Amino acid sequence: MANIFIGIDLGGTNIKVGCFDSDLKLLAKISTSTEVEKDAETIIENIAKASEQCVAKSGFSMNNVLAAGLGCPGPARYKEGIIEAATNFPTFRNIPIRQILSERLGGKTIVFENDANVACFGEFVAGAGKGIEDMAFFTLGTGIGSGIINKGKLLTGAGDNAAELGHTIIHFDGRLCNCGQKGCAEAYASASNTAKRATEAIQAGEKSSLKKILDEKGQITCKDVYDHLKAGDELAKKITDETAEVLAILCINALHATEPARIIFAGGMIAAGDILLNRIKDYFNEHIWHLRKETVEICFATLGEDAGIIGAAALAKNQ
Amino acid sequence: MANIFIGIDLGGTNIKVGCFDSDLKLLAKISTSTEVEKDAETIIENIAKASEQCVAKSGFSMNNVLAAGLGCPGPARYKEGIIEAATNFPTFRNIPIRQILSERLGGKTIVFENDANVACFGEFVAGAGKGIEDMAFFTLGTGIGSGIINKGKLLTGAGDNAAELGHTIIHFDGRLCNCGQKGCAEAYASASNTAKRATEAIQAGEKSSLKKILDEKGQITCKDVYDHLKAGDELAKKITDETAEVLAILCINALHATEPARIIFAGGMIAAGDILLNRIKDYFNEHIWHLRKETVEICFATLGEDAGIIGAAALAKNQ
Repeated sequence: MANIFIGIDLGGTNIKVGCFDSDLKLLAKISTSTEVEKDAETIIENIAKASEQCVAKSGFSMNNVLAAGLGCPGPARYKEGIIEAATNFPTFRNIPIRQILSERLGGKTIVFENDANVACFGEFVAGAGKGIEDMAFFTLGTGIGSGIINKGKLLTGAGDNAAELGHTIIHFDGRLCNCGQKGCAEAYASASNTAKRATEAIQAGEKSSLKKILDEKGQITCKDVYDHLKAGDELAKKITDETAEVLAILCINALHATEPARIIFAGGMIAAGDILLNRIKDYFNEHIWHLRKETVEICFATLGEDAGIIGAAALAKNQ
Repeated sequence: MANIFIGIDLGGTNIKVGCFDSDLKLLAKISTSTEVEKDAETIIENIAKASEQCVAKSGFSMNNVLAAGLGCPGPARYKEGIIEAATNFPTFRNIPIRQILSERLGGKTIVFENDANVACFGEFVAGAGKGIEDMAFFTLGTGIGSGIINKGKLLTGAGDNAAELGHTIIHFDGRLCNCGQKGCAEAYASASNTAKRATEAIQAGEKSSLKKILDEKGQITCKDVYDHLKAGDELAKKITDETAEVLAILCINALHATEPARIIFAGGMIAAGDILLNRIKDYFNEHIWHLRKETVEICFATLGEDAGIIGAAALAKNQ
């Protein structure tokens, strides 16, 4: 009987599920609404139904499923399978999600991991990290998620909450982050905070072609900022330069922590393209120590939104 | 025939050597001058002679030596056994120290590692890190050396230069560090830089009981600053508070990188005692995120200056 693996990427908006064969070839995938405002039981039932539908779509049955991987935003007690208080899931409070989902899926083994770790593992096995043993991974969205691969394995730490590099402090006494700390990299250089800094600058009176967007739509997105950068707006240049500089410092700190051979950026913001990547590299070269020549590669992820389901399935296969 | 192990701690001032039995019990130790200004051959010969003398002192012969561990300041190409350009060793330029020393000691296997990693491993096997699997280690001296233990192993990175956490940037565009970066934790909170900040403040006109020391001796040490803190000097309080705050931020960043269960401080500065440790803990609690309750322990090392030779011997035994 053929063995297949389910990879689940639980996000605040959508649940993505993929079914993979034992070579991690994608057989089928589906996406459904998380209904994040509903109670935990409903959300877990949504995950279970999506998993069953995806298996059916792949042409196999649940009997073929050897294990499932579940990526979910942290912090959580991943080893114990418990979501304590994930930031964007108001109803998830001390929910033993792994056990409930496993029982609902007929006792299947479920590997439970941080969503950024899962996407990191996806890029490691099948994307921009293929072939290397040590990498760091950053996903630039509402926040900055991160993952670390050390000697070919996910670095998980003493309590499975390692690799929260977006919350390393790079600006002593700096901007307040949603996590409660001051000066986190995330407070400057996530997609949301890049847009927010542009908004704040305009509200403080700085001139910019972005003002029209803010006036018309009531908000600016990170994409708007990069679009206006490309059109020559000075404020957009200043804001995106600061984002790239913070991301370069984050690369330097990641290098001095676990010394990856490659640092990979993912998330919606990388749609900005080379204008972002080259600026990060420039600032990295400007700020890095001169004690030795560093050869770390900085690049973009290649799997897009599938990184999570691939990584989750790969973790399920590896367990 | 009894097997013994040699642990060597190569510093800019002294070479320390210890001989250990297979239970890592110390049999003998000696210390000799490095003669750092001399050529590399002389320094390596000093290491070899000290090793032979230590073995003789232990009552054994070189035939009993199964392997040696050598801890040496970085950055270096540890895997290849080559010192590229260690900061405080002016004559060490691309020296294949492992091979030269091994040949000089009759072909003994030599494990070559960063000095802070070696001391970290010493504390892990026999000191303040005993019994835990994930730790971070900082040694506060001229610089801030660091080591990371992940799942019971030294974290060495893609090129064996991981765990340089003292050179993570916590102050965007801050004080210039000896490494060429701006705003490294080391540039504020090493013992030398704590003394230097006090000196700079006095030279800028700030009032302090330390001024008398500076006028009389021409310099202030970190010990002076902590002595005057204990005697109630306001500037000493301000300077040591800043040191403790930076070390707390370093703990937060180390936690968000590899999530140690314990963070251990070592080096001359910990002689300051609880007045330093408690302040680090206070600032840690003040600055740490509120997404989850962190339980990491922050404490002082227990092996003192022997951590390096114990760690080096333990690495030799483990290889």
